Amino acid sequence: MVNYPNGKPSKSLDLVTNTINNSKIEYGKRGMKFEDEIDNSNRYYLQNDLAIIHKKPTPIQIVKVDYPKRSKAVIKEAYFRRASTTDYNGIYNGKYIDFEAKVTQNKTSFPLINIHQHQVSHMHQVYRHGGIVFILICFSSLEEVYLLPFENFYHYWQRYKDDEKKSIQLKEIKKDGILIPYTYRPRIDYLKAIQSLYSI
Amino acid sequence: MVNYPNGKPSKSLDLVTNTINNSKIEYGKRGMKFEDEIDNSNRYYLQNDLAIIHKKPTPIQIVKVDYPKRSKAVIKEAYFRRASTTDYNGIYNGKYIDFEAKVTQNKTSFPLINIHQHQVSHMHQVYRHGGIVFILICFSSLEEVYLLPFENFYHYWQRYKDDEKKSIQLKEIKKDGILIPYTYRPRIDYLKAIQSLYSI
Repeated sequence: MVNYPNGKPSKSLDLVTNTINNSKIEYGKRGMKFEDEIDNSNRYYLQNDLAIIHKKPTPIQIVKVDYPKRSKAVIKEAYFRRASTTDYNGIYNGKYIDFEAKVTQNKTSFPLINIHQHQVSHMHQVYRHGGIVFILICFSSLEEVYLLPFENFYHYWQRYKDDEKKSIQLKEIKKDGILIPYTYRPRIDYLKAIQSLYSI
Repeated sequence: MVNYPNGKPSKSLDLVTNTINNSKIEYGKRGMKFEDEIDNSNRYYLQNDLAIIHKKPTPIQIVKVDYPKRSKAVIKEAYFRRASTTDYNGIYNGKYIDFEAKVTQNKTSFPLINIHQHQVSHMHQVYRHGGIVFILICFSSLEEVYLLPFENFYHYWQRYKDDEKKSIQLKEIKKDGILIPYTYRPRIDYLKAIQSLYSI
């Protein structure tokens, strides 16, 4: 199991993909992790020529690389860097798509400590430039995924920064966002939610 | 000096950023490398709220991470993975922007061996979905940078795949692309070229 870069075991979104001999980590009883489900949706959209959306690789600072003879290069020392953007972006129907994906085990609210100012600044700037920007929030205990448009998210963020409420209530997300029901293929059809929300 | 992952010293675009104690590699007499110049343009566009365009981090496959006490996590073993997309994307004026940047020391042609099928497939798909897609080509010996729109690039690619010509002639690039003159800030104002080419 690979720990989150702050040294604590990862319970939420893991920035690191750990694959040894191409076998993935077992995720236990909870099933596929949220990011895998989104990757699964993105692959589906790509293969069916519906949208081209990718997760950005984790940025790292490489310090040392070895070049063994007759073998591929090995990075021997590198450090995680903080991304200056959100994790996902791409194109759908001529529009620039940009989003973050977050998970919480809470049942009645989404803690805003999960979001970082630089992510909000990026989303805000992209939104002002005409992008379709949103957050996908997975309530893992409830097995519910919501799409919350950035323009609706932002006022809760400002409320948080004004030191008022540290979370967005589930009922507020239901009001200002859209539930994405689990479907067969893909499991999380967030593109369908975009189509209905933005009429595109 | 960090070598290109195939073991050879890098003369063209280096995927790896090697920074030790935050000091960059010296590039010798040729001045800032092409990617740095593009990063410089992207930073300028960001700071002046003109466009939000970023280089995608190099994708890597992480195998081993150490967590020293009271110190940040260190990646001890990782491998370079091939990117499935182009290196740069973002948004400008509501449009999805996507491009590759290539350098050649040649003086009269651009060798197509520098471009890979998966990059072309990605660009083609993005283009069909309404994105603004192009290649920035730097003729380093001539100190000239051209923007070649994907729709024009593509027929040269098909010519190459039909086993005909292995390069695009400089005169063909001048005809089907646009020269980006070096300016003071930013040095390579490719956004200006986009504005004139696409009337946006």
